[in-house]
Amino acid sequence: MSETVAELRYELALANRILAHENVFDAFGHVSVRHPEDPNRYLLSRSRAPELVETGDILEFTLDSKPVDHPTVQLYAERVIHGEIFKARPDVMAVCHHHAPAIMPFCIAGEEIVPVFHIGATMGTQVPFWDSRDEFGDTNLLVVKPEEGASLARTLAGNSMVLMRHHGATVVGATLRQLVFRSIYTCRNAEFQMAAKMLKTVSRLTPGETEMAAAVNLAPNASSRAWEYWVVRLEKSGGMPPR
Amino acid sequence: MSETVAELRYELALANRILAHENVFDAFGHVSVRHPEDPNRYLLSRSRAPELVETGDILEFTLDSKPVDHPTVQLYAERVIHGEIFKARPDVMAVCHHHAPAIMPFCIAGEEIVPVFHIGATMGTQVPFWDSRDEFGDTNLLVVKPEEGASLARTLAGNSMVLMRHHGATVVGATLRQLVFRSIYTCRNAEFQMAAKMLKTVSRLTPGETEMAAAVNLAPNASSRAWEYWVVRLEKSGGMPPR
Amino acid sequence: MSETVAELRYELALANRILAHENVFDAFGHVSVRHPEDPNRYLLSRSRAPELVETGDILEFTLDSKPVDHPTVQLYAERVIHGEIFKARPDVMAVCHHHAPAIMPFCIAGEEIVPVFHIGATMGTQVPFWDSRDEFGDTNLLVVKPEEGASLARTLAGNSMVLMRHHGATVVGATLRQLVFRSIYTCRNAEFQMAAKMLKTVSRLTPGETEMAAAVNLAPNASSRAWEYWVVRLEKSGGMPPR
Amino acid sequence: MSETVAELRYELALANRILAHENVFDAFGHVSVRHPEDPNRYLLSRSRAPELVETGDILEFTLDSKPVDHPTVQLYAERVIHGEIFKARPDVMAVCHHHAPAIMPFCIAGEEIVPVFHIGATMGTQVPFWDSRDEFGDTNLLVVKPEEGASLARTLAGNSMVLMRHHGATVVGATLRQLVFRSIYTCRNAEFQMAAKMLKTVSRLTPGETEMAAAVNLAPNASSRAWEYWVVRLEKSGGMPPR
Repeated sequence: MSETVAELRYELALANRILAHENVFDAFGHVSVRHPEDPNRYLLSRSRAPELVETGDILEFTLDSKPVDHPTVQLYAERVIHGEIFKARPDVMAVCHHHAPAIMPFCIAGEEIVPVFHIGATMGTQVPFWDSRDEFGDTNLLVVKPEEGASLARTLAGNSMVLMRHHGATVVGATLRQLVFRSIYTCRNAEFQMAAKMLKTVSRLTPGETEMAAAVNLAPNASSRAWEYWVVRLEKSGGMPPR
Repeated sequence: MSETVAELRYELALANRILAHENVFDAFGHVSVRHPEDPNRYLLSRSRAPELVETGDILEFTLDSKPVDHPTVQLYAERVIHGEIFKARPDVMAVCHHHAPAIMPFCIAGEEIVPVFHIGATMGTQVPFWDSRDEFGDTNLLVVKPEEGASLARTLAGNSMVLMRHHGATVVGATLRQLVFRSIYTCRNAEFQMAAKMLKTVSRLTPGETEMAAAVNLAPNASSRAWEYWVVRLEKSGGMPPR
Repeated sequence: MSETVAELRYELALANRILAHENVFDAFGHVSVRHPEDPNRYLLSRSRAPELVETGDILEFTLDSKPVDHPTVQLYAERVIHGEIFKARPDVMAVCHHHAPAIMPFCIAGEEIVPVFHIGATMGTQVPFWDSRDEFGDTNLLVVKPEEGASLARTLAGNSMVLMRHHGATVVGATLRQLVFRSIYTCRNAEFQMAAKMLKTVSRLTPGETEMAAAVNLAPNASSRAWEYWVVRLEKSGGMPPR
Repeated sequence: MSETVAELRYELALANRILAHENVFDAFGHVSVRHPEDPNRYLLSRSRAPELVETGDILEFTLDSKPVDHPTVQLYAERVIHGEIFKARPDVMAVCHHHAPAIMPFCIAGEEIVPVFHIGATMGTQVPFWDSRDEFGDTNLLVVKPEEGASLARTLAGNSMVLMRHHGATVVGATLRQLVFRSIYTCRNAEFQMAAKMLKTVSRLTPGETEMAAAVNLAPNASSRAWEYWVVRLEKSGGMPPR
């Protein structure tokens, strides 16, 4: 394994734990990154609660979501979310699927999430809504078949986030750190949007504001300031992955 | 005492502490398990806040909720909740009674809890509502007489959870770990349902979705992933029961 | 100083810290206890955030809220809340004044708090509402003059808790531990009442239920189970007062 | 560097961390203090998450928000918020800009914040609302140009706090500790106001009450009691800045 891959596996374990510590994941949810040396593969943990993921748990998958080696460990059932999006979106380098409490009310009520503050603008101007019943009728709601993953990827289209009816959300990023930033701050945006609605009314950023605010908040300065912060918070909680 | 029983007593102490750490219990609430070698007995702590329960606190009771030995310690007043449900439901291996903040609004407002996301589907398609006044009029609301416990068990019927007016909830499981999983995730479901209602509206899973999603989430893979997570969280908090 | 008094001063420091740790107090709020050997005196900390109070901070006051010794330290401005209630209510052995987030919405909206679950019944059947403007017009809202304290005590009358417009609440108890129990669980009751209102509607316990549920929850068994729990939680947080 | 300045830089690092620990800041937000020996300069950290700021991060700026030395580190983009307010308000000694969850619903819904309890009265009788679109149209919402900072300062006028549409709030103080007190308790006020609105209705303090309650709560006794409390809480969390 190259040093680049080794380092990225550690960073992915760290991303798992940060997303758990910042209330995006609980026992469930998963985050992947495209292989840095082979765009037809991606890295994802074995089936394990994200807060506990270590470097040794990270496995390699083809874009058909088959494990490259023949692991004896349990795998996440919903790998196709990652594989099908990596197939459909060559620009995407990292994918996060979660059931954060912040976004679940929107998934259940069928309410649109819109950017309501500058950092939330990183969601983009539109967050589509995917309903598994439209194509597949009654299911157990998990996205386990390739065609289910492909359907989700079609609804995501060129956007950065998609809500999934009665289930959760899937978020994508051009880098792993950008993905972590977007996943956390779209949750904050959802909380603020819901609170504004309960207080009085929701007004959203204009399209122009959204585009400009997204650009500045996805720039390395904002993202690295936040990353340092989340790492220190994780350290204080005793939650860093072993080196 | 056999090794099986000794191990189960430790697991029950652990379940007590996990349920407290995950905000199902506070100073009150209790969880029991049927005796693994004698279906006419069950194990339950002496009267103590669940977060503090140790193996040595676990006592053995008949299904009439009489202690098998003659302990000098204080006992939970509401033991009949456990005993009467174990009598009425041979399929039930574990019972949890709680007043979690997540479900209290439903118990007070008289609002039905319904499955609103895939993991919440573990509640089943119906959660009946028990009102102590219907049969017993004004009481102190505690379920302390055998006939009160039996009445609650009749309302629970073949379901997995029952709400109790102005009081709390009682949840059952086919194993202790399944019970812990269901107790925690039905609380999450209640929180999401309430938030969706405040945001806009509640839509529930279809009966078909509920059945299929419950099956997959009660399977050992989901349950053991979550159990490992809760144990690690409890460990980090310094809350493990002494061995 | 007798051993009884020494022990009670430690217990009062502990009560201060428990009430802070359980979100009744923040930087403000105070709790007192009647002197165990002289009913015309009471014990209260010098002006300090409750979470930090130590045995050495506890001072002795007359029922006119004058310090018995001539301390050089800063005193709480609102001592008359304690002194005037101890004067008016010989049955009261402990007094707590707080601005807990749980009850502030009721103080601001002018909404009545009512018992909505069995443990909340410890508030009693009625919680009167005191508005400082009625007798005193515009003030800085602090209760600092003896006549203000006496007015508050008259509104409290024979009840266990009084809400104060735009300010907070004052709670009384027959023992210090009962007071701590009632202060914490009336906050939980307020949270549940508010949530039930937002979810759908509030239904209260009947008067008969309230009386019976209050009796059982104020009995030593419930109170001591909860006290042990709060002490252990405080210990885990590293917050015990030095011996 | 004089001892006064050295001490103030430490206090500013402490203020950064307290405001983060008390949920005013997250990865973003910043707090400054006017230079104690040169009113035409101010002290502010380099670009860093406030919870992590150390004495060595504190830099000196002119009122035009130019760094006095030529640091190679990244600077906060929104320095002009501080510089332009220090220019316009000679009475102001400290400035805090934040996006606290407590106030964001008001910034998004366009709802006025009003004093609803005695400690919240420290916001003053009026909190103006600044909308960047009024003068500048679509922007990325950051306040980065001197004319944007000057516009914000004009809307702030002689008040103590200003809300910023879809962005956050800026708070000022006559001392750094007063600023920290006001920043934290205006957030508590916002939470209580929102909760009262959801419960039933909001009633505000009268102008006379607001003025009198602000005076007593900005006095050194209240402020130093709270400061000691926040420092101890920060210490317990392991978050003190290195000396």
